[in-house]
Amino acid sequence: MFLYLSTWAEIERFLERSRTIVIPIGSNEQHGPTGLLGTDWMCPEIIAGEAQKKADILIAPTFNIGMAQHHLGFPGTISLRPSTFIAAIGDWTRSLAGHGFEKIFFLNGHGGNVASIEAAFSEIYCEASFARRQSGFALKLCNWWDLEGVDKLARDQFPTGHGMHATPSEIAVTQWAYPNSTKSADYSPQIAPSGPIREALDFRARHPDGRMGSDPAQATPEKGRQLVELAAQSLVRALDAFSREAMPG
Amino acid sequence: MFLYLSTWAEIERFLERSRTIVIPIGSNEQHGPTGLLGTDWMCPEIIAGEAQKKADILIAPTFNIGMAQHHLGFPGTISLRPSTFIAAIGDWTRSLAGHGFEKIFFLNGHGGNVASIEAAFSEIYCEASFARRQSGFALKLCNWWDLEGVDKLARDQFPTGHGMHATPSEIAVTQWAYPNSTKSADYSPQIAPSGPIREALDFRARHPDGRMGSDPAQATPEKGRQLVELAAQSLVRALDAFSREAMPG
Amino acid sequence: MFLYLSTWAEIERFLERSRTIVIPIGSNEQHGPTGLLGTDWMCPEIIAGEAQKKADILIAPTFNIGMAQHHLGFPGTISLRPSTFIAAIGDWTRSLAGHGFEKIFFLNGHGGNVASIEAAFSEIYCEASFARRQSGFALKLCNWWDLEGVDKLARDQFPTGHGMHATPSEIAVTQWAYPNSTKSADYSPQIAPSGPIREALDFRARHPDGRMGSDPAQATPEKGRQLVELAAQSLVRALDAFSREAMPG
Amino acid sequence: MFLYLSTWAEIERFLERSRTIVIPIGSNEQHGPTGLLGTDWMCPEIIAGEAQKKADILIAPTFNIGMAQHHLGFPGTISLRPSTFIAAIGDWTRSLAGHGFEKIFFLNGHGGNVASIEAAFSEIYCEASFARRQSGFALKLCNWWDLEGVDKLARDQFPTGHGMHATPSEIAVTQWAYPNSTKSADYSPQIAPSGPIREALDFRARHPDGRMGSDPAQATPEKGRQLVELAAQSLVRALDAFSREAMPG
Amino acid sequence: MFLYLSTWAEIERFLERSRTIVIPIGSNEQHGPTGLLGTDWMCPEIIAGEAQKKADILIAPTFNIGMAQHHLGFPGTISLRPSTFIAAIGDWTRSLAGHGFEKIFFLNGHGGNVASIEAAFSEIYCEASFARRQSGFALKLCNWWDLEGVDKLARDQFPTGHGMHATPSEIAVTQWAYPNSTKSADYSPQIAPSGPIREALDFRARHPDGRMGSDPAQATPEKGRQLVELAAQSLVRALDAFSREAMPG
Amino acid sequence: MFLYLSTWAEIERFLERSRTIVIPIGSNEQHGPTGLLGTDWMCPEIIAGEAQKKADILIAPTFNIGMAQHHLGFPGTISLRPSTFIAAIGDWTRSLAGHGFEKIFFLNGHGGNVASIEAAFSEIYCEASFARRQSGFALKLCNWWDLEGVDKLARDQFPTGHGMHATPSEIAVTQWAYPNSTKSADYSPQIAPSGPIREALDFRARHPDGRMGSDPAQATPEKGRQLVELAAQSLVRALDAFSREAMPG
Repeated sequence: MFLYLSTWAEIERFLERSRTIVIPIGSNEQHGPTGLLGTDWMCPEIIAGEAQKKADILIAPTFNIGMAQHHLGFPGTISLRPSTFIAAIGDWTRSLAGHGFEKIFFLNGHGGNVASIEAAFSEIYCEASFARRQSGFALKLCNWWDLEGVDKLARDQFPTGHGMHATPSEIAVTQWAYPNSTKSADYSPQIAPSGPIREALDFRARHPDGRMGSDPAQATPEKGRQLVELAAQSLVRALDAFSREAMPG
Repeated sequence: MFLYLSTWAEIERFLERSRTIVIPIGSNEQHGPTGLLGTDWMCPEIIAGEAQKKADILIAPTFNIGMAQHHLGFPGTISLRPSTFIAAIGDWTRSLAGHGFEKIFFLNGHGGNVASIEAAFSEIYCEASFARRQSGFALKLCNWWDLEGVDKLARDQFPTGHGMHATPSEIAVTQWAYPNSTKSADYSPQIAPSGPIREALDFRARHPDGRMGSDPAQATPEKGRQLVELAAQSLVRALDAFSREAMPG
Repeated sequence: MFLYLSTWAEIERFLERSRTIVIPIGSNEQHGPTGLLGTDWMCPEIIAGEAQKKADILIAPTFNIGMAQHHLGFPGTISLRPSTFIAAIGDWTRSLAGHGFEKIFFLNGHGGNVASIEAAFSEIYCEASFARRQSGFALKLCNWWDLEGVDKLARDQFPTGHGMHATPSEIAVTQWAYPNSTKSADYSPQIAPSGPIREALDFRARHPDGRMGSDPAQATPEKGRQLVELAAQSLVRALDAFSREAMPG
Repeated sequence: MFLYLSTWAEIERFLERSRTIVIPIGSNEQHGPTGLLGTDWMCPEIIAGEAQKKADILIAPTFNIGMAQHHLGFPGTISLRPSTFIAAIGDWTRSLAGHGFEKIFFLNGHGGNVASIEAAFSEIYCEASFARRQSGFALKLCNWWDLEGVDKLARDQFPTGHGMHATPSEIAVTQWAYPNSTKSADYSPQIAPSGPIREALDFRARHPDGRMGSDPAQATPEKGRQLVELAAQSLVRALDAFSREAMPG
Repeated sequence: MFLYLSTWAEIERFLERSRTIVIPIGSNEQHGPTGLLGTDWMCPEIIAGEAQKKADILIAPTFNIGMAQHHLGFPGTISLRPSTFIAAIGDWTRSLAGHGFEKIFFLNGHGGNVASIEAAFSEIYCEASFARRQSGFALKLCNWWDLEGVDKLARDQFPTGHGMHATPSEIAVTQWAYPNSTKSADYSPQIAPSGPIREALDFRARHPDGRMGSDPAQATPEKGRQLVELAAQSLVRALDAFSREAMPG
Repeated sequence: MFLYLSTWAEIERFLERSRTIVIPIGSNEQHGPTGLLGTDWMCPEIIAGEAQKKADILIAPTFNIGMAQHHLGFPGTISLRPSTFIAAIGDWTRSLAGHGFEKIFFLNGHGGNVASIEAAFSEIYCEASFARRQSGFALKLCNWWDLEGVDKLARDQFPTGHGMHATPSEIAVTQWAYPNSTKSADYSPQIAPSGPIREALDFRARHPDGRMGSDPAQATPEKGRQLVELAAQSLVRALDAFSREAMPG
């Protein structure tokens, strides 16, 4: 069930049977010569969309711009500062918690978001903690590749050249969901170099075509289908477990 | 051309032929008993999507959460504070301007966003103005119903009961684009009351089912199709005019 | 009754008979070759001052610096960033609401303030809306030229060349109230050009003498007197209506 | 010369002969049973107004709301948070410095403002200091009672019961300038108590009628006249000295 | 008793017998050719450390970075912006007040901190004052040289050349506590010049070796011992008086 | 070499031979029934102190308060909000980078700091990345237990009951450095439970004595000595490698 395709009255009824919501969250940033700029927010959106076909879960609109400052040297990247990101996640959370959502699950598609999202959680909890009161909600961050079994499947599919950015697994997912947008290019070198992540110009100097440690040529739509199917199943189970967790306090 | 379905290299090439980009921007908020929560961001996304089939224009990812504090009394609404909204629009703008975009066109779908978006533009321009230097870009806000001819068509389609929120025109647009998500309900009264906009509880007390002055029962997918087609054509012309405007300075 | 010429005990007694207060709010910015830099905050101050002679209303100190970033290319302009403006309006509101004022009426003299003031209202209401509680106060913005009958009078007085900035109507108001400060100049062209509003250098390039679409030479003190008198009467009525509105909730 | 009664062209010419500007700055806050709520911003405004009759100096609009959180327990007080105050002083400064003002003199009327204004100066200088560059301007804070000779005169006029808040000297200044607004009351005790300054409720509990250590009954318009005349003369000299100071660097 | 060398259970027990805590606060900044960069935070830390040997008082960790923007022209200086400083003091205060501390005593070692710390206090009190409620705690700022008798002793020890920065008294304190870190240099002139404090480059131009009005050559460890001993005794008495003050309200 | 025990002239000379600095950073928070509140900032301070005996490295003052909101349910904990933490790390970095430090190494002692520190790095890099310029410095975060070999040693020393908070390894380090502050208590259960980290009240409910998964009774000063010695050696090597890394760009 997609929140954006529902009426408020339908959400009111959903809240009578569940207090859990999933927010697909990612980034809009370069993904190498063939990866789509939307890859990191499309992957969790695709997986969440598949999962809601299998179970009575609620999917929030996608939080599509994240923390991608190091990719700003490549055209098309859009980034929030961490401070803006933290403020926005706070507003989303306060909006949803005020409706009665008690378990807010962020399904993340961008490793560079993790620190800022966790900092945002702490910033939100601070309100309750400084006042020594209960917040009334629990926040959970989960990268889609950390859903049960997914990382193992990706390693089986791509034993070498998986890398850290513009990985064949994320590109496979978008190939399956958006087959008309599949791009091709010659990669040189076949597996991209790695290195520390600093500001945008430094990143582009180190990674001239945008990839980090990856060989996206291995991606296929079929591998994407396998990843999405497994991830969607695992997401349903993860949400069920999160829903049954005792509330903070 | 959708930015999120492109590679950075494709955007680099696009910048050689154009410096203009469209950002669909809206809100995720209650739209009465039958309107979809995503209506206000889906409408500009739908129109921009149609327009990019007709012309070589570039569509950014949709900015889907706006300023909707007064709707927070209805489940499913998600709102940013104006200060967060301003910060985020600033980061989007700085990201895009740094790539060389000089004309940034916000196609808006939510009246309640207007003040905050304009305040955001002023906040961004302040950086150049305090320093008495040129910004290097121009920002434009346009509500989709203010595109040439659109308001007249809506008034012709809905001579009474168009109203200000959960209007039949916006609902028609979503009915055309998402036919499987069309909802129905009995409206009472048929045309909803109007009133001042203050905080969320006050809004819900004044507008118990969420509508303001509207009768959404008049919406049909066909009327939506007409609106989208006209708006898309007008958007292409508006972008062309904006692109040809002299740069600030 | 002016708050600044009262003691706290007098305000305490005023609150027993009314919960309404007027804040004249404007901007300090260039107004063409003959307009005073203080025009936009002096006009609402003058009108409110006249109104309090006619009725038992309370006038707060004048909020004299607003959002005028686009005028910073002309010496003497002072501007707040929208974010600062929003913070300050919030502090004024919280100060007054804590004393028991329930209806806070901003009488505005600068079109460029409107977006930021409305964004400020939303920012303030957010505190109540996120918490799903009542704010306890209502905020209203009214430009002095939107007081009942005033715009019609101005159009009658100045059928051509009224324009949008450094208008003959606002200059007439200051001529009447500050007759010793009337300035004169040759205008070229007689009616100034118009255009989009962006950053300061762009504004000055488009509007070399600071005017937008106006011919201030038509201003006279007598026309100013008529405007002030009518506006003061309409303000008293507007405040009465606002005072009798039901409180939010 | 008052900036608000000038045109931008007049300020442009003033800048050719001087780079110095005076900002009267104060607070709008309770001043005991007989003191006017505007006392603290009216005093520097009155003195600056008198000084500009004697010399070619430029007076900015009055910054009329300051840091008065401890007075919020008394109706009519309006306060900024220090963080808002700092932001606003920064925007005033950046606006003026961008026009070419190099010496910005804040003539202050409220002791409670001092810390926040000095913090604001440091905040502004930080921009230059972190970048290890020159700011291009110098900021100076001067309380009107610290102008040469003024404190001695006040002590001669009021050897006992001058106190720290709602002092007879500041009330005398407003009596002279606003004779129609002189108020009277019985004071009990004749000289008010003193104590630490904390939050608003604490302040009102310690100082039930708002005074701190003062006996305002000693104020007379004539004493006010003497204070204003002396302060105005000293202000002219202070500005002259400040103007001749070498620029930072 | 040092908080950092205690367990939470020991602090829980301390709160049963006292609600007062001391925070040594200073700055890390250049102190002339021989003064240590840590002088301003080490002095209050040293004095507080000595005092806790004499009485059952609790010393918080040292707040070691303050507002030192004007010293940034000298290597080793680290400064917070006032806005950051205010935010951080707020968080410290909220953390401690939530544990039940009601009297929070900031023992300060840097004159340049005073304005920002006082502004921070006002910012914190604003939360209670805007809401017209009690804060539940009292904040006190005391420079170590303002502890009873200390300034007189320093003047007796250093009748000339005490100055305002890199003073012989503060250097004596660090010489006593850190005898192995005593430095020497030729001073030229023997007593440094004074002047206004603006941005960093200006400060270094006016005070080429970093001193302001001081002759640190007069410092000796023995004089430092006398200062620390007296200051520690006075601190114990000041804390006792502060503890016995009635709570705000 | 400790910065706080140096003069500015000594730092100026240091910068001629190295552009690298170490900032010990931690938290002041409960560490179970026997751990010291200062454990997390003392450990990196102790290790850095030991390392500077072995090599010509420069140690900044300790950043002693971090992000510990979840521990605020236990007396003595002091926490910054992530937003404050980010602002402060930015000011430290700008201060040091302005002096010419190009490699800033944060030696961290608190797992809960990691997300906020990484978010701070991104926030700082954003300034350069939005402007598409080079920052001129590189930032590195390293937990002391991630220094080469340290984690392996700790696992050898404490094969069971090491846990995540109030670990025997960190307590051993403080026992070695502060032998007089060693505390003892009966632990029940011997190995503490684990669980998710949310707000403060929830944390205390889940972990009644403050420990997470650890058995601190295994700590001994001798094990602490081994850890410090190894960590200090590895720190020297890590700094050397970091110093030799190519600069961003």
